[in-house]
Amino acid sequence: MEFRKLMEERRSVNYFDPAGQVSDEELKKMVALASLVPSSFNLQPWNMIVLRSPIDKARLRKVAMDQPKITEAPVVLILLADEEGYKENNPTVGKVWESMEKKGYMKPEQKGWFLGAISKLYGGDNSLAFAVKNTAFFGMGLMLAAKELGLDSHPMDGFSREGVMKEFSIPANFFVPMLLAVGRFDQSKKLLERNWRKSYREIVISEL
Amino acid sequence: MEFRKLMEERRSVNYFDPAGQVSDEELKKMVALASLVPSSFNLQPWNMIVLRSPIDKARLRKVAMDQPKITEAPVVLILLADEEGYKENNPTVGKVWESMEKKGYMKPEQKGWFLGAISKLYGGDNSLAFAVKNTAFFGMGLMLAAKELGLDSHPMDGFSREGVMKEFSIPANFFVPMLLAVGRFDQSKKLLERNWRKSYREIVISEL
Repeated sequence: MEFRKLMEERRSVNYFDPAGQVSDEELKKMVALASLVPSSFNLQPWNMIVLRSPIDKARLRKVAMDQPKITEAPVVLILLADEEGYKENNPTVGKVWESMEKKGYMKPEQKGWFLGAISKLYGGDNSLAFAVKNTAFFGMGLMLAAKELGLDSHPMDGFSREGVMKEFSIPANFFVPMLLAVGRFDQSKKLLERNWRKSYREIVISEL
Repeated sequence: MEFRKLMEERRSVNYFDPAGQVSDEELKKMVALASLVPSSFNLQPWNMIVLRSPIDKARLRKVAMDQPKITEAPVVLILLADEEGYKENNPTVGKVWESMEKKGYMKPEQKGWFLGAISKLYGGDNSLAFAVKNTAFFGMGLMLAAKELGLDSHPMDGFSREGVMKEFSIPANFFVPMLLAVGRFDQSKKLLERNWRKSYREIVISEL
């Protein structure tokens, strides 16, 4: 689809067609397309849990303000932002380094610099913003990729972070920045007009 | 441009054509298109400072690890994530409410619920993740919208957060999640092959 049309037609839909399935193939294509977004030093500190079974979606709904779309959407993703995604012992860090070295983008003697730079930029107080920012790039990619594949989605904040962490035994290195319901809009419902957006003048606080 | 092609062709470029300008018109179109991304309760807690003048880009470069692309790109954006973007006295919050009420999406008597919900979800310890996540959606929108308009970009983390805040007298309610260089790729340079991406198996930690 044309990008402009896709941006205009992507909406956070509240009603999912209970009969509208999402195949494994579609979900994999959606993830592969979304993965093309950039990330800090290519560290891709994003993971996710995929929920399809009614029982597990009900478990999530219980800790997510009882939102009906969680059980109505065929697929719900729990996005995970890895706050340790910059650490030397993180498996992705090793793969990122290996790939850069193999392609000749970095020389073996630069490894210390690379590990030091990411630790300085993303460690300590910076780890939450690092993990959330990059996972949000990926999340935005997922929402757009869904639309490209003829699917609809809805990003959700209405959940207890502690409740979700506990219910799904999520390791403590992960922060849950959002849930994402994915499916097909229930065409028997009316899609509301798009909401107001800030203008250029309201966004730009200074031009130098 | 087709979305898939756009995702494939959007790259974080390191070299900008010093002669490749970005018009005000292009920047405004880019921002308007990017603004179609979703945000938490439509709160759009994103702002930015636009840098075009060589003197001001040099001021930024000084606090951003002396990165040449800051002065080479015709436009550099300092993205600002508003950590107070959920507060009742925030001007955007008032406009979001007004717009929803006007469209009939919310009834006047629901205002207390709305203000309470956003304060509970995004206040206190949650304000950084709220501001950064949503501003990252917008940032991702900007990078894709730039490509749609024939422009290139590069998101940057290599800067002193304190240095940028001080140099540009940025109010303390803002967190700076990224800088974004915008311009046109210098065609005399070679674009490196795209880096490695995590596979579906490396992203999904559990399927239920």
